[in-house]
Amino acid sequence: ADGADLVVVCTPIGAYAAIGEAIAPRLRNGAIVSDVGSVKQTVVRDLGPHIPEGVHFVPAHPVAGTEHSGPEAGFAELFQGRWCILTPPPGTAPEAVEKVGELWRQAGMMLEHMTPAHHDHVLAITSHLPHLVAFSIVGTAADLEQDLRQEVIKFAASGFRDFTRIAASDPTMWRDIFLNNRHALLDVCGRLLEDISRLQRAIRWGEGEEIERLIEASREIRRSLIDANQA
Amino acid sequence: ADGADLVVVCTPIGAYAAIGEAIAPRLRNGAIVSDVGSVKQTVVRDLGPHIPEGVHFVPAHPVAGTEHSGPEAGFAELFQGRWCILTPPPGTAPEAVEKVGELWRQAGMMLEHMTPAHHDHVLAITSHLPHLVAFSIVGTAADLEQDLRQEVIKFAASGFRDFTRIAASDPTMWRDIFLNNRHALLDVCGRLLEDISRLQRAIRWGEGEEIERLIEASREIRRSLIDANQA
Repeated sequence: ADGADLVVVCTPIGAYAAIGEAIAPRLRNGAIVSDVGSVKQTVVRDLGPHIPEGVHFVPAHPVAGTEHSGPEAGFAELFQGRWCILTPPPGTAPEAVEKVGELWRQAGMMLEHMTPAHHDHVLAITSHLPHLVAFSIVGTAADLEQDLRQEVIKFAASGFRDFTRIAASDPTMWRDIFLNNRHALLDVCGRLLEDISRLQRAIRWGEGEEIERLIEASREIRRSLIDANQA
Repeated sequence: ADGADLVVVCTPIGAYAAIGEAIAPRLRNGAIVSDVGSVKQTVVRDLGPHIPEGVHFVPAHPVAGTEHSGPEAGFAELFQGRWCILTPPPGTAPEAVEKVGELWRQAGMMLEHMTPAHHDHVLAITSHLPHLVAFSIVGTAADLEQDLRQEVIKFAASGFRDFTRIAASDPTMWRDIFLNNRHALLDVCGRLLEDISRLQRAIRWGEGEEIERLIEASREIRRSLIDANQA
């Protein structure tokens, strides 16, 4: 960080406090500190207090990625047409926000501003909950006895496969995301469990119309995704 | 069905009893009746009693497909390298089983024999539960207020998107699958809810090692899928 114009922190979120402490004395006046973390409230909490007076702090979340991690996992089109969310604290210098935004715009991203709390709420439903569920369902299958497990692999094309891709994501990175967004995540997870229970109950009691109605509602969302070029 | 050598029933499973009744008087001696349904115990129960003496009954499940339904949803490579599961009742003429198997082999499929009960158990975890969960999680997102919903669409690339593809599947077809495999499905769904609760609890109580352990276990399954060419 010595004398750098811009420092972008790209580690699991759990390391941010230690990183903040380590880089703080080396940041020059007028430098910008940003990051790419998937949770923003705890980033502001953990990294914010270490940012010296005269250094700009522009937390960002380029919402793109695959199940692979690390510098080798990048590729030229990774950010193309995706959204980058900026969550600068109130009073941050607009030029600093603009510089970080321009960096991601050059990579092909569209920009969006949010408060850290709103960011964490939106990402809890679009990203953190799907990962929690994918890890769980793949784990449930893994726990089935060895014989059946071979068959889970064989017949994965029937739906299971779609869940395994994101379940291959990095454990440390996801441990930190879950722990750092626990309130929003537990809230949406509670909602999902209610919804699964409702469908489960409709199946147990043979309520065909209710089942069809629930399925129909979720098809509509898929159509919206296709219309928005995010499918 | 008049004078046909082979009749393959390809409708939602809920229609099988009525179809069996309608085609029974028209089946010629030596004909074969098969199907492509995703549940096999209730197919044997609903279609089996209508099959006349002298007609062969070979239920089959070609495990392949997309979220699209109907004849237009087919394409040349759909069945290539996938598995077809045959569940003929005990005592079925081997030549009839061989004929149905050969049909799917010619389409590029590999063959597997199972009892209807075992089939329904395996498919409950590999296909029916993933669909139940996908419908639910997409429904949970859809229920969030209109404002947030636009953002769910925008940031879907972060994980949510993987669930929406299978959630776009046909409501009538899936209503019938859920209702006709309810016992096996409710069993695996109960297991999943236990597993989600365990992860949820670990997140609430900040048990980082437990979270990492659960995520690590599910990565292993993904590797097996890649090794088996089913990823």
